[in-house]
Amino acid sequence: MNERVTVPGEPTLEALRQRLTDFAAARRWEPFHTPKNLAAALSVEAGELLEIFQWLTPEQAAGVMAEPERAHRVRDEVADVLAYLLQFCTAVGVDPLEALAAKIERNEHRFPVPDGPADVNADMGE
Amino acid sequence: MNERVTVPGEPTLEALRQRLTDFAAARRWEPFHTPKNLAAALSVEAGELLEIFQWLTPEQAAGVMAEPERAHRVRDEVADVLAYLLQFCTAVGVDPLEALAAKIERNEHRFPVPDGPADVNADMGE
Amino acid sequence: MNERVTVPGEPTLEALRQRLTDFAAARRWEPFHTPKNLAAALSVEAGELLEIFQWLTPEQAAGVMAEPERAHRVRDEVADVLAYLLQFCTAVGVDPLEALAAKIERNEHRFPVPDGPADVNADMGE
Amino acid sequence: MNERVTVPGEPTLEALRQRLTDFAAARRWEPFHTPKNLAAALSVEAGELLEIFQWLTPEQAAGVMAEPERAHRVRDEVADVLAYLLQFCTAVGVDPLEALAAKIERNEHRFPVPDGPADVNADMGE
Repeated sequence: MNERVTVPGEPTLEALRQRLTDFAAARRWEPFHTPKNLAAALSVEAGELLEIFQWLTPEQAAGVMAEPERAHRVRDEVADVLAYLLQFCTAVGVDPLEALAAKIERNEHRFPVPDGPADVNADMGE
Repeated sequence: MNERVTVPGEPTLEALRQRLTDFAAARRWEPFHTPKNLAAALSVEAGELLEIFQWLTPEQAAGVMAEPERAHRVRDEVADVLAYLLQFCTAVGVDPLEALAAKIERNEHRFPVPDGPADVNADMGE
Repeated sequence: MNERVTVPGEPTLEALRQRLTDFAAARRWEPFHTPKNLAAALSVEAGELLEIFQWLTPEQAAGVMAEPERAHRVRDEVADVLAYLLQFCTAVGVDPLEALAAKIERNEHRFPVPDGPADVNADMGE
Repeated sequence: MNERVTVPGEPTLEALRQRLTDFAAARRWEPFHTPKNLAAALSVEAGELLEIFQWLTPEQAAGVMAEPERAHRVRDEVADVLAYLLQFCTAVGVDPLEALAAKIERNEHRFPVPDGPADVNADMGE
């Protein structure tokens, strides 16, 4: 599971996290980057990503990346959500990859692979 | 900026993304993992992270990781947000690291490092 | 448009707003009821309402009130959203009915009734 | 508790709810106003309200209505949240005032008025 599938030339999550920290420091934004503010900003940006989909049928939503303008918005909001998540992690001292790996371990026990049809209402969130 | 700061033994973002894809496939959850549903789930989990902080003063929020129970909740919600973000990226075919790197490039032009006091109301989101 | 369709015995919005103010005062919760905290709490509760629907197909979502347990959750989250919205309005001194009436006026000019098919992507939000 | 404190000439919540229904019908927006879409839109608008406050200190947030531009945005987002909440209630057949009155009743039993200091972490949401 620890294989390193990295695209050559692509930065790692950790490199981007550090770059965001430097970016904020150079602009003196650290006083605003409290855990509470960053959690709020993350939630706001997740809402902006959802906004793209709010009136779309499942079929329209599936084809969202075929329209260049919407595709750009999607990539842009993904970037914003990830940026605030990484800045939040910096503010509280959490390693996001470690947190996710631990959660997947727990969920592999919590949701064993079913023999029959899956429980369609189960979800990752606790 | 493309240095690889990887903790030995720690999975990469891409490895975790693949593991989540396999996890969902084994449980036959793919029909539920539409872009629209995953954007909604991401927003819901970001709300659950914010919930931890909603009544805290800035001072209390800064000390959130000193309480083991709250610290666990924080790590757990970070994992949920990251999990749904990665699953959303899989569903729409977006590379989250590439999207974030491109956004940081744009923001470096959009928010040049100031000589004087920073614009305290500027934010990453467009 | 100003007709008073009130169910006999049903409290008005203003009466419930006042009752929530009294409720918080009796429990000494006012220090926590800042505009920022209440805006966060409102967003969190809206997420909890959305959570009920996140994995449902449009057809399942349409029948959500036929299941007593889900119907109770829906009513409960509607109440939470409305409660925090009213408490937010109290904290900032906004009359929610007046704000909505003004917005509808603006939208009646902004979205004239079409002769042909409606613009399906238009929405109320500015 | 059922006193009718209504400002003369101010519409009731029910009158505004009906007006929103007529507004959407005239523009043929009903097919988009499914419970799931409206719950998503409500969450998105609650995020937009929170966005106004995300970088503000508690002191700045307390004075938000003193700035005309921000005050307009606050009233506008309050209107959007209330509009989508009412449209959601129409879609699922829930009376929002009745739901809130029932919730307050339950909370009066759940959170009895304390003799000593209040439990600062208790909140309305279940």
